[in-house]
Amino acid sequence: MSAQVQSMHWRDGRLHLVDQRALPGRLEHVVCSSWQQVREAICSLAVRGAPAIGLAGAYGVVLAAQRLAVPSSAWTEAVQALRTARPTAVDLSWAVQRVARDAEAATNPAEAALRTAMFLHRQDAERCARIAKFGAELIPAGSWVLTHCHTGALATGGEGTALGAIAAAHRAGRVLGVYADETRPLWQGARLTAWECGRRGIPCRLLVDGAAGGLLASGRVAAVLVGADRIAANGDIANKVGTYPVAVLAARSGVPFYVLAPESTIDSGLPSGADLPIEERPGGEVLSPVAAPGTEAYNPAFDVTPAELVTALVTEGGVLRWPYAFGISAGRGATERA
Amino acid sequence: MSAQVQSMHWRDGRLHLVDQRALPGRLEHVVCSSWQQVREAICSLAVRGAPAIGLAGAYGVVLAAQRLAVPSSAWTEAVQALRTARPTAVDLSWAVQRVARDAEAATNPAEAALRTAMFLHRQDAERCARIAKFGAELIPAGSWVLTHCHTGALATGGEGTALGAIAAAHRAGRVLGVYADETRPLWQGARLTAWECGRRGIPCRLLVDGAAGGLLASGRVAAVLVGADRIAANGDIANKVGTYPVAVLAARSGVPFYVLAPESTIDSGLPSGADLPIEERPGGEVLSPVAAPGTEAYNPAFDVTPAELVTALVTEGGVLRWPYAFGISAGRGATERA
Repeated sequence: MSAQVQSMHWRDGRLHLVDQRALPGRLEHVVCSSWQQVREAICSLAVRGAPAIGLAGAYGVVLAAQRLAVPSSAWTEAVQALRTARPTAVDLSWAVQRVARDAEAATNPAEAALRTAMFLHRQDAERCARIAKFGAELIPAGSWVLTHCHTGALATGGEGTALGAIAAAHRAGRVLGVYADETRPLWQGARLTAWECGRRGIPCRLLVDGAAGGLLASGRVAAVLVGADRIAANGDIANKVGTYPVAVLAARSGVPFYVLAPESTIDSGLPSGADLPIEERPGGEVLSPVAAPGTEAYNPAFDVTPAELVTALVTEGGVLRWPYAFGISAGRGATERA
Repeated sequence: MSAQVQSMHWRDGRLHLVDQRALPGRLEHVVCSSWQQVREAICSLAVRGAPAIGLAGAYGVVLAAQRLAVPSSAWTEAVQALRTARPTAVDLSWAVQRVARDAEAATNPAEAALRTAMFLHRQDAERCARIAKFGAELIPAGSWVLTHCHTGALATGGEGTALGAIAAAHRAGRVLGVYADETRPLWQGARLTAWECGRRGIPCRLLVDGAAGGLLASGRVAAVLVGADRIAANGDIANKVGTYPVAVLAARSGVPFYVLAPESTIDSGLPSGADLPIEERPGGEVLSPVAAPGTEAYNPAFDVTPAELVTALVTEGGVLRWPYAFGISAGRGATERA
């Protein structure tokens, strides 16, 4: 049906991660045998995508539990270092704490940690499938859609969130193809979305991020589908920089703007987008490849999309339409984190 | 005061153009001794920026008048080929026709063409100075501003339009610095705006085009200043792709959005933005440098900003605020074209 890639797998006591930095040129793996290597893979973006980062962190805790006494100060330090490897995606913090908690409660911490990490991995594949099913139903037949950044199999433990829904709608014959924002500065659209669409047989047209406005105004796009790195309790969305402009432009052109993410992305502890931590990354990402020497850069990795610009939020629990009647923090994700 | 570069000069019967493709790495010139070479320089973007394209076209007519009988079918063909080298910027068509008309009316066509081309060149420097003066007065003291694409000396026959106004406000101590959109796919912000700001001592922070929305929402920018390639009679603006998103985002955040361009940019023959011709350029510009092999691209070079999103239009004639009381096509530019 589709040549879906797997973002990571556990084999012979080590975590094998697709090195997303090497794509689309080479499909190769980073092999981690220590929690420090997992942290480095997360920080250096060898693995990216909120759900995938969470799973990598979960397996990182397994590696820590194999080497360190549980509990111990070294263990606590390892868990904390994994949990905070990147600040914006909340899945990471959630998954790391979940695995650490199960390890600490077990007589064999390493075994318990691995069991939980593998459970979360399977669970992510299942919730991706549910998100894809709910999301695909929102897309009208015969349409082209627009996406930003990358939300496919590489970004998750399953078939993806927004791109998973697009793939499901394509298999059902409803989506004709995808317009993909290239997504500067790290080219997730050009490198990863275009590559995954190619493997999965989904027609893909790449555009520069600045061209999305004119495209939406032209009426050629039936819906926008994106993922999320963290969702505040009021429904405000933190996602890859450039998401907020697309949401504003979609609203202006009357194009539905859908956010697809697992419930674990919802951070009920954050009242609104004003409280969302935004990671600023090295300026070199912007200055590469062509900027004039000596130039400074401003490089926020994420931006905040206000809840009222989100037509609907799609989780494994279903489709929530703004304004959210009971608050989105009441979902299963929030319960699991409690 | 400032190390301002000159976009082009005429010497020894040849047109010397700064090769904008080689910047910021090398400052070198393309030397044109035939109208065909000028056309090629325009098509290949060795010269770009609406006023600079117009002047290059004007000098291209001079080269045609030196080699060809005026009038003749070869002459008519040359003028037509220069006039249509790029479709969106109207300055090109305007300047080429102006020089051709003067050549055709003279006993020595080549001499008359050169006189008119040099007049237009001096006139562009003067109108840049007036635009800079009017524009600089709109910028509050102590502010950072945002710009898109490149509108400096390289894009004109003088000190620039939007970037000229920013430079003037910087000299007056009012502008602290510029946030510059990198402007994919051709990096005019990263390559040219950052380079010119560096030469002119204006602090410049580069950002990816997708980060402009969050920046505007943050309140750190006091005004947006951009140029224009063509302005319809109702005030709709065609400019570099990505301009329209910035206008929408500025309006949402209550940040003034100023368009600075000579009156010759106004095309009174076009009722509205719906009639503006938008050049689609080769997909390779988007696919370079990193897209997955086999990907298609959608690459419009321009987009249309509706007039109501433009806080004010600044020309050499002064500051026009929307809604335009008498229609903007009544200016001197329109009269000159009549």
